[in-house]
Amino acid sequence: MTKIRAGVFGASGYAGLDLVEILSKHPNVELIFGTSNTYAGDAIPNSDLKFIPSDSVSLNGVDVIFLALPHKESAKVAKMGVEAGVKVVDLSADLRIDSPEVYEQYYNTVHPHPELLPTPYGLPEINRENIKNVDVVATPGCYPTTTLLGLFPLLQCDAIEVGTPIIVDAKSGVTGAGRKPSLTTHFAEVFGNLSPYKTGRSHRHVGEIDQEAHKLNSKIGPIIFSPHLLPVDRGLMASIYVTLNDTMASDKVHDLYNTMYKDEPMVDVLPLGDYATLKHVVKTNKCVISVTPVLDKYVHITSVTDNLRKGASGQAVQNMNLMFGLPETSGLL
Amino acid sequence: MTKIRAGVFGASGYAGLDLVEILSKHPNVELIFGTSNTYAGDAIPNSDLKFIPSDSVSLNGVDVIFLALPHKESAKVAKMGVEAGVKVVDLSADLRIDSPEVYEQYYNTVHPHPELLPTPYGLPEINRENIKNVDVVATPGCYPTTTLLGLFPLLQCDAIEVGTPIIVDAKSGVTGAGRKPSLTTHFAEVFGNLSPYKTGRSHRHVGEIDQEAHKLNSKIGPIIFSPHLLPVDRGLMASIYVTLNDTMASDKVHDLYNTMYKDEPMVDVLPLGDYATLKHVVKTNKCVISVTPVLDKYVHITSVTDNLRKGASGQAVQNMNLMFGLPETSGLL
Amino acid sequence: MTKIRAGVFGASGYAGLDLVEILSKHPNVELIFGTSNTYAGDAIPNSDLKFIPSDSVSLNGVDVIFLALPHKESAKVAKMGVEAGVKVVDLSADLRIDSPEVYEQYYNTVHPHPELLPTPYGLPEINRENIKNVDVVATPGCYPTTTLLGLFPLLQCDAIEVGTPIIVDAKSGVTGAGRKPSLTTHFAEVFGNLSPYKTGRSHRHVGEIDQEAHKLNSKIGPIIFSPHLLPVDRGLMASIYVTLNDTMASDKVHDLYNTMYKDEPMVDVLPLGDYATLKHVVKTNKCVISVTPVLDKYVHITSVTDNLRKGASGQAVQNMNLMFGLPETSGLL
Amino acid sequence: MTKIRAGVFGASGYAGLDLVEILSKHPNVELIFGTSNTYAGDAIPNSDLKFIPSDSVSLNGVDVIFLALPHKESAKVAKMGVEAGVKVVDLSADLRIDSPEVYEQYYNTVHPHPELLPTPYGLPEINRENIKNVDVVATPGCYPTTTLLGLFPLLQCDAIEVGTPIIVDAKSGVTGAGRKPSLTTHFAEVFGNLSPYKTGRSHRHVGEIDQEAHKLNSKIGPIIFSPHLLPVDRGLMASIYVTLNDTMASDKVHDLYNTMYKDEPMVDVLPLGDYATLKHVVKTNKCVISVTPVLDKYVHITSVTDNLRKGASGQAVQNMNLMFGLPETSGLL
Repeated sequence: MTKIRAGVFGASGYAGLDLVEILSKHPNVELIFGTSNTYAGDAIPNSDLKFIPSDSVSLNGVDVIFLALPHKESAKVAKMGVEAGVKVVDLSADLRIDSPEVYEQYYNTVHPHPELLPTPYGLPEINRENIKNVDVVATPGCYPTTTLLGLFPLLQCDAIEVGTPIIVDAKSGVTGAGRKPSLTTHFAEVFGNLSPYKTGRSHRHVGEIDQEAHKLNSKIGPIIFSPHLLPVDRGLMASIYVTLNDTMASDKVHDLYNTMYKDEPMVDVLPLGDYATLKHVVKTNKCVISVTPVLDKYVHITSVTDNLRKGASGQAVQNMNLMFGLPETSGLL
Repeated sequence: MTKIRAGVFGASGYAGLDLVEILSKHPNVELIFGTSNTYAGDAIPNSDLKFIPSDSVSLNGVDVIFLALPHKESAKVAKMGVEAGVKVVDLSADLRIDSPEVYEQYYNTVHPHPELLPTPYGLPEINRENIKNVDVVATPGCYPTTTLLGLFPLLQCDAIEVGTPIIVDAKSGVTGAGRKPSLTTHFAEVFGNLSPYKTGRSHRHVGEIDQEAHKLNSKIGPIIFSPHLLPVDRGLMASIYVTLNDTMASDKVHDLYNTMYKDEPMVDVLPLGDYATLKHVVKTNKCVISVTPVLDKYVHITSVTDNLRKGASGQAVQNMNLMFGLPETSGLL
Repeated sequence: MTKIRAGVFGASGYAGLDLVEILSKHPNVELIFGTSNTYAGDAIPNSDLKFIPSDSVSLNGVDVIFLALPHKESAKVAKMGVEAGVKVVDLSADLRIDSPEVYEQYYNTVHPHPELLPTPYGLPEINRENIKNVDVVATPGCYPTTTLLGLFPLLQCDAIEVGTPIIVDAKSGVTGAGRKPSLTTHFAEVFGNLSPYKTGRSHRHVGEIDQEAHKLNSKIGPIIFSPHLLPVDRGLMASIYVTLNDTMASDKVHDLYNTMYKDEPMVDVLPLGDYATLKHVVKTNKCVISVTPVLDKYVHITSVTDNLRKGASGQAVQNMNLMFGLPETSGLL
Repeated sequence: MTKIRAGVFGASGYAGLDLVEILSKHPNVELIFGTSNTYAGDAIPNSDLKFIPSDSVSLNGVDVIFLALPHKESAKVAKMGVEAGVKVVDLSADLRIDSPEVYEQYYNTVHPHPELLPTPYGLPEINRENIKNVDVVATPGCYPTTTLLGLFPLLQCDAIEVGTPIIVDAKSGVTGAGRKPSLTTHFAEVFGNLSPYKTGRSHRHVGEIDQEAHKLNSKIGPIIFSPHLLPVDRGLMASIYVTLNDTMASDKVHDLYNTMYKDEPMVDVLPLGDYATLKHVVKTNKCVISVTPVLDKYVHITSVTDNLRKGASGQAVQNMNLMFGLPETSGLL
């Protein structure tokens, strides 16, 4: 079988490096290039290639490009890819928001290529049919992936009490903050610490979570989303608190999750009484979920992913598999 | 001035060791003994004494005893102390619950000395007048201290919407789990991990939080309390989510906290926009609080303490200061 | 092709769990059982099996057993395996020391089965020909593996000044201390700390390092070996300091290492100027080595492995591959 | 008593922040200013002051200035201080090297003010008499402090075999690398890792260690110094390996250390069999040393400090105490 020829833009960031590691073991992929302006000329780990500057790339020899680039930059390369006729898996935020106005509101900048919107949202467990065989996919952010998978069954079944807030207390490892050095990610600042940031509804991922949650269920109350920086390198936990309506007793929620996810290879629902922890998912493409009923009408859901895998690169490859008609889990289990 | 002669039961656990460290620098205290059955004969760090077995203690030479003992054991020594006429600062759960029936429900054991109940609850910022000059005080748990201080102004002002749940997503450093080795606290299990445990309403501290919160405000809805084990040694964060009633707009809450805590030396309310982190409090007796309004009627409160200081030993000394008529912050700033 | 049917004794320790993880992906192996007396009945991670008690094992259905057991226990099961005609890969110290007298000196106990000694020492890069197709192999300890690979070229070439000490300052992640809880491995004791232990020549691995180093070169001076406990979960570094004799200038050592290891798939020698770090090897079966010349006649060598992989389970599988005539790297790259 | 009025240049780096924390509790000091060009206007933690830019400082109102500045910048401010008649405690490397030529060799730059050299070297346990009441002191680096205190008794007694190398395998917490963000200090790069850097004799601190060691003993062989970056925030360990000459048996070394340091309040020699660990010294101004004899003629010494305290700010204050005729431990125990 001919291999899919893939290029990675932004290959020296944490998501990019992880993507190369996954692709290097993928049975159906050959890595053609990885770009990095900062590390151009250095060896790309887990490959025989060297980083090249992004402006020296030719798209002639590739079938698909992955964009692990900052927002705004990413849309421009996506556009190039579309015009060159190669498939595009974008890992940035540029193609995740359906409307350029909402994008502008969250990212404080005019969308560089609104004609690319809307793009299929690459969360296969929720949106699989819209990803298969298409040419461009927006891979979701790490927080939205973990939150939406944690909420999906309740949203889908319309089991959340109208008007009640959905609390998402989230915690992420430091790779989620990117590889560019800053005081925020300095070892001595993070070590032994735990820090909230952009809580309430001020984090950019709120736009994306809102958009996709409302597609599933338009009646829900506000999502209150509070991220925290954890002193670990990778792993993300969304702790979700929901008030149920009369259609759903709290002790039925675990069955619901088991049923809805029973055929999903990338989502594991733990037995009642067990708790999802980071160790369940680090270096895997899994989302692991635990469900705890609280009194009659509340439920505490813990949803965990590796922010670089199911929260970024792994899911990007899962999307690529669907876009090329490969088995969805190829190279990922 | 004559120094207060103090003894510490359970001096080799993490709270006991921290207590000795604080007392060793307290200008009005002389440490007379520290017990440890496991480490009897070893030097007590930060002192010139050696650990002695608890059954070799004489209460004759002391004015106050601190009990950093497991529940059930602690009440027995408290009883001895009361009978010997020495003041007692209990750090265990034995004297925190007013009713022996509720104690039995949370601790699955008959209370050893129900005649000691109720004991003044040693959270000075809420209950100062009941602690001054008394002979026995129950020092609160780390989770209740951090949660109750985070909620106190809203409870006191009756600003929480009746019937809505109060969400407390809490995270604690590993010293909170005690010094006795177990797989749960094995370095290789905790490193790089984050684990929920006893979430919903199953943790023992729920009884104590419920009791004290309802004394302040009987109309509140259920407290949903979810602790997590953090990969740090010390520090505790309670992330609190509340729905406000019509008497309080979310953008007024920060002022309320500033006002209510402005004279409290051990509670700092951060400027709006800043977030409380573990580094604010580690190795201090402070509770640091940040308040974030969310939409019109919700608020996200982050309350942090050092679980061994304001959450245990520091607060025990703060209580001792009040019990002996000393300045409340002696030896603590 | 028929798969090799393998059983793992001591499958719930860190080495055992890692072994199961490796074997579960090995193309030529089927895992038949994993024993654990503590966790009998629980699911074995990375497999569809449950832990069984060691006394319920039957050796009829297996071709090879791996022994991740405490010393003294391990030799007994090795004996059973030999008598049952199955191949044995021992990960304990029981079969590593050639002489029962030396074993007794280091382990303070009479060797349970001296008739099993000597057993081929399973460090393939040094001893490959003696491992191929044999029935019993002693897999080396983590410190000896990392130290001996770091020294091998210099020992082999007789380049170390007679009578000078060989300094080995070693650092190991906490999984090297086993999974049984103890104060030494309590998170709060290890976090933020670094601790030497059994330094000089008092650690048990000294016997094994001495024995194998002297087989390669009988003229060397004393090996001074100082292990430290590092606050990481896995990874081991041996920092080696050597005085060269007149046959070898310090600036020729790097070439020597490159030459001697150029065909070894599991040993990487870094370019001059780069340093071997734990991140080079964690979760791999590699030993990575860097060489730094110091003045004319000294050399500083950094040798790193994952203590659970090349230092234990990975090397055990490498040995199994050789014992069964498989490609040496099967299931390991 | 009148307080000493102190100013801190470079108050927002890790050493500067630590210095402010120590000075804020010093009974004889009043902090007058702290400079930071990056954080000018922000509150200085542990004080009521705000950072000011260095060019807005007036030296009129101060008695002493502490320079926690980069080398080359520091000498310029030292010169200003000298000319203004205030005492100067320099924490940079600028005044540590006696000769401008040697300085240029290690720092690749012409010394900005060679007329300031030589300056008394502020390691009080070795050089106390030269520090008392002087006007300018060079506070040693963290590695030199820890290494020299670990070697001092053997150097002083001429107990090291002529011509043998002195091996110093050193490990430092990340604050030792400064607060300026870089990939080297990014949390995700350091977490779970251990990295050698500038080993052999290429680290700048070698010049300083060599200079001071040779003052104590001109006959010693080469010092081979290999630093490593540890995944902790603070704490530094020098693991020292020495070959003794005929005047000293290895089992006498511990007595020697006990004797030589018995009156030193800042140096603790542990009982034979105990090991110095980072936890012994973090957040203290102590150097803690353990001594392990190895065979007859070798010794392994572990010397630990907090790199920001005894390795920088604490020692700077110890020097200030000597310079002003205060008790040496004021504000430090």
